[in-house]
Amino acid sequence: MLKIKAIGVSEGLARAKALVIRDVDLTVVRNTVTDIEAEQQRALEAVENAKAQIAALRDETEKNIGPKEAEIFDAHLMMLEDPDFVEGMTNEIADESVCAEFACMVNCENFQAMFRAMDDEYMQARAADIGDISMRVLKNLKGIAENPLDTITEPCIVVANDLTPSDTAKMGGKPVVGFITKIGGRTSHSAIMARSMGIPAVVGAGEKLDPIEDGMELLIDGAAGELIAQPDEETLVKFAEKKAKDDERRAMLAAFRDRPGETSDGRRIIIEGNIGTPGDAVRVMELGGEGVGLFRSEFLFMDRPDLPSEEEQFQAYKKAVETMDGRPVIIRTLDIGGDKEVPALDLEKEQNPFLGYRAIRICLDRTDLFLVQLRALLRAARYGDLRIMFPMISSVDELRNAKQVLREARDLLDAEGVDYNPNVKVGIMVEIPVAAVCADVLAQEADFFSIGTNDLIQYSCAVDRINEKISYLYRPLHPGVLRLIAMTAKAANENGIECGVCGEMAGTPGMASVLCGLGVTNLSMSASAMPAAKADLAAHSYAECRELAQRLLKTASAEEAEDIFAEWRGE
Amino acid sequence: MLKIKAIGVSEGLARAKALVIRDVDLTVVRNTVTDIEAEQQRALEAVENAKAQIAALRDETEKNIGPKEAEIFDAHLMMLEDPDFVEGMTNEIADESVCAEFACMVNCENFQAMFRAMDDEYMQARAADIGDISMRVLKNLKGIAENPLDTITEPCIVVANDLTPSDTAKMGGKPVVGFITKIGGRTSHSAIMARSMGIPAVVGAGEKLDPIEDGMELLIDGAAGELIAQPDEETLVKFAEKKAKDDERRAMLAAFRDRPGETSDGRRIIIEGNIGTPGDAVRVMELGGEGVGLFRSEFLFMDRPDLPSEEEQFQAYKKAVETMDGRPVIIRTLDIGGDKEVPALDLEKEQNPFLGYRAIRICLDRTDLFLVQLRALLRAARYGDLRIMFPMISSVDELRNAKQVLREARDLLDAEGVDYNPNVKVGIMVEIPVAAVCADVLAQEADFFSIGTNDLIQYSCAVDRINEKISYLYRPLHPGVLRLIAMTAKAANENGIECGVCGEMAGTPGMASVLCGLGVTNLSMSASAMPAAKADLAAHSYAECRELAQRLLKTASAEEAEDIFAEWRGE
Repeated sequence: MLKIKAIGVSEGLARAKALVIRDVDLTVVRNTVTDIEAEQQRALEAVENAKAQIAALRDETEKNIGPKEAEIFDAHLMMLEDPDFVEGMTNEIADESVCAEFACMVNCENFQAMFRAMDDEYMQARAADIGDISMRVLKNLKGIAENPLDTITEPCIVVANDLTPSDTAKMGGKPVVGFITKIGGRTSHSAIMARSMGIPAVVGAGEKLDPIEDGMELLIDGAAGELIAQPDEETLVKFAEKKAKDDERRAMLAAFRDRPGETSDGRRIIIEGNIGTPGDAVRVMELGGEGVGLFRSEFLFMDRPDLPSEEEQFQAYKKAVETMDGRPVIIRTLDIGGDKEVPALDLEKEQNPFLGYRAIRICLDRTDLFLVQLRALLRAARYGDLRIMFPMISSVDELRNAKQVLREARDLLDAEGVDYNPNVKVGIMVEIPVAAVCADVLAQEADFFSIGTNDLIQYSCAVDRINEKISYLYRPLHPGVLRLIAMTAKAANENGIECGVCGEMAGTPGMASVLCGLGVTNLSMSASAMPAAKADLAAHSYAECRELAQRLLKTASAEEAEDIFAEWRGE
Repeated sequence: MLKIKAIGVSEGLARAKALVIRDVDLTVVRNTVTDIEAEQQRALEAVENAKAQIAALRDETEKNIGPKEAEIFDAHLMMLEDPDFVEGMTNEIADESVCAEFACMVNCENFQAMFRAMDDEYMQARAADIGDISMRVLKNLKGIAENPLDTITEPCIVVANDLTPSDTAKMGGKPVVGFITKIGGRTSHSAIMARSMGIPAVVGAGEKLDPIEDGMELLIDGAAGELIAQPDEETLVKFAEKKAKDDERRAMLAAFRDRPGETSDGRRIIIEGNIGTPGDAVRVMELGGEGVGLFRSEFLFMDRPDLPSEEEQFQAYKKAVETMDGRPVIIRTLDIGGDKEVPALDLEKEQNPFLGYRAIRICLDRTDLFLVQLRALLRAARYGDLRIMFPMISSVDELRNAKQVLREARDLLDAEGVDYNPNVKVGIMVEIPVAAVCADVLAQEADFFSIGTNDLIQYSCAVDRINEKISYLYRPLHPGVLRLIAMTAKAANENGIECGVCGEMAGTPGMASVLCGLGVTNLSMSASAMPAAKADLAAHSYAECRELAQRLLKTASAEEAEDIFAEWRGE
């Protein structure tokens, strides 16, 4: 039996066999070859295998998802059947006496450069497809198997170095009952996805995971941040008891699903869900969400070689709004950069991406992209209470500039005679410290605030939220962070606008009372956390919450605040 | 004639010939060779050349700087004479049929790994020396010449991609009258060094610099951020007139050198200098500095393979304190990480180094290093008004922990019977947003504050200060930044402690009045900016400064504040 303790990021208990995903080495060195013909043959075989794999993927996707989603694979097949593409590789082998792997990468770069040089945006986006198929050919050359996530049929607990958005997307609909990774923290992508899927997850386990092998019996406890491999009989019995208790607690919480969020004396706090795709809204409804406080629209842009069209975006936003059936749906405009890559944009690497060219900064620079999204949002707003939210606003200038682009989008739709809703509420994320400090100014021009605590903590404490080495400095209860939240809520209340929190802090057990006491009016979180937040609020009066908040604001340090909070929680 | 406009970071006017430093390509590919013996011969020749170069460097350093500084080169020579080191390379060529360049890098990694695996800290630091000599051998193999900065004899304007700390160190004492670089911003290392050296500099010129060739006639205007290559007669005449006027202005400012910093109605604002080495203190004294507000001690740690000993640090701090002759000298403890590398520590690469493991975070983790520095500081404090300042403090816990290590240093010195000054003032940098927001708490436990505006702006606006793509968001007059400064100054004043500013903002023309009006009591800047700051203060009353500050604090945006400031400056 082996016990591993790490960072629990999504609660829940599960028992299943391990599915281990090994990291693959894709580095390529320029090896010289002498038998040119044999090397060319290797290259051609790798291409043929790639074709067969893609054809199979296409058929599976068409069957399980839909013909539209399968189209991309047809495009990939066409490229692989292009004689120029294949000859680019074989000629490179002959001309330079290099190995097939190296030739594959050179050919990939040549073709990408060619596509990128074209004026047509569509053709430019094809550079990403070239990268995709070249990577597949390279994997075949290196004898690297398909991603095991593609072939899951039995319930399993995934064990990996890290899970990319494409990995977690693959897990959707498959019987993955939990996962544990070597790297990551509470706000890393995989952690957010785990909470959204409602499965237990533990991250940041590092080398302790090395002894876990495929097929091992595993127990995972997401709340405790614990994994047990090859449990003995006694442990299994205890685990089963714990699970029974947990199921009971969940049943208790279920009673809160259909109640509105409010304190024991009736102060209303709207409890909403965070979503990444329109499909996630279904779960928000099932778990009693009073709206969507954060739709991360960038998920529509990630893990694909091209950009979603206006129509595709419109359909996605419309579906979310319709699913929520009249309840508010706050859609955050494209928040990419930082740790979120969009292949079709091919953004430059930066030294400090979290402090770099991202979110609204990209949108105000690339108004071509921004206009497409805003048009889709305005059109979808006809189908419900859609609200637009701009991320990473640091000044009233940026808000005014973003609103100006929104007016341009309206003018374009007007000119084209396209139907849309002109009365959309426009709010901002408060996640940059100066935005909180200047909340009084911003509240005069925004229809609502939503505090993004993940980034607000990161910037105000100067601590990269996914750097494990300094994770001890990432403290939601740092009195400086609480004061910034209180400042923001006060400005919102004084200007008669709503002030939500949509960062991870909103869904942290017990934090609903704290935020309510600080003056926050809306809390948006992973759907699975909503019932507990309602239960938390129902257990206290507004006066109690305010008193708690006042005590926390007066502390000298995060540690002192954490002690007060633990005592309040009865821990 | 060619005019280039970019970012002026250090004012002044100069005319000289161009010295162009080209970037060198040090990438190594694994090329296969057939003539093993010839390749081994190439490797041996490169080693012999390296020996000759190092011996020459040693002699020159011994003559110009001192025998102690030359010792490192003896160590390098010994390593190159070690038969195991040379055979490591030749054997790799024979065993793997690889080119000498690749063998050199493999050998380097093997030796570094061996040194790093040793328990002895001294031997671990030798890994950096292995890197140094291997790089020299590699440059010889690739036919890359010595750095042209080593051979300057004539006055010149340096034209480069970027200048590293080791480059700017080389420029000291050489007739470099100005420089222009492709990358960088106002707070990049090279910009700070230019202001400290008092020479004109322009950065961020990008590809516009490509046409500049070695030996071209250049005019540089640091204030305007302008470079003119191959000027015509008319331009030369105009430039000479401008220079005459500038010399006149400097003479006028010289009158302020010996006056204290104060407003027209006598409110005292202490004007101090920022220094990187004890030698810089001489210039601070020459230009009438009332103290040193920031001694960046990390400069003692950079650009060298080993760590400075306690004795070496003690001597450096003592020299600075003695040079300042009783005036206060604030020494900031090690602020490395971020963009400042210390080879001997071999820190891991981080995704967002500015939000990472740096400064006090490293020192509280590596108390072995920290204790050495604190002991040296306590000892040097016997020779004048030395004050200790901790950087990157985000909470009172960190301040308490740092003070605890200081107590340990005192206990050790007590136990050893070593003399030191037990009454040293201990202050903190306020540069993390939550520190400004919680300044009231911190002011109760710190003896003084010094606001680091470079980092404070960076974090509070979430903008990497050396990322050109978003440099438009780096705005010292953002009302949020000004409010954070005002909050900090207020807390300091209420607790009866000094509140300085030591970031670049302090030395920006006209900003002295603004900061004085915000309640700041000390301003520390590049020595060359001190007379102008005194002149600025002398031209206004404290009431005028306060009124200006109040107007700026009430603005809605940086743009509005900048307009008010420009108007105030009569621009």
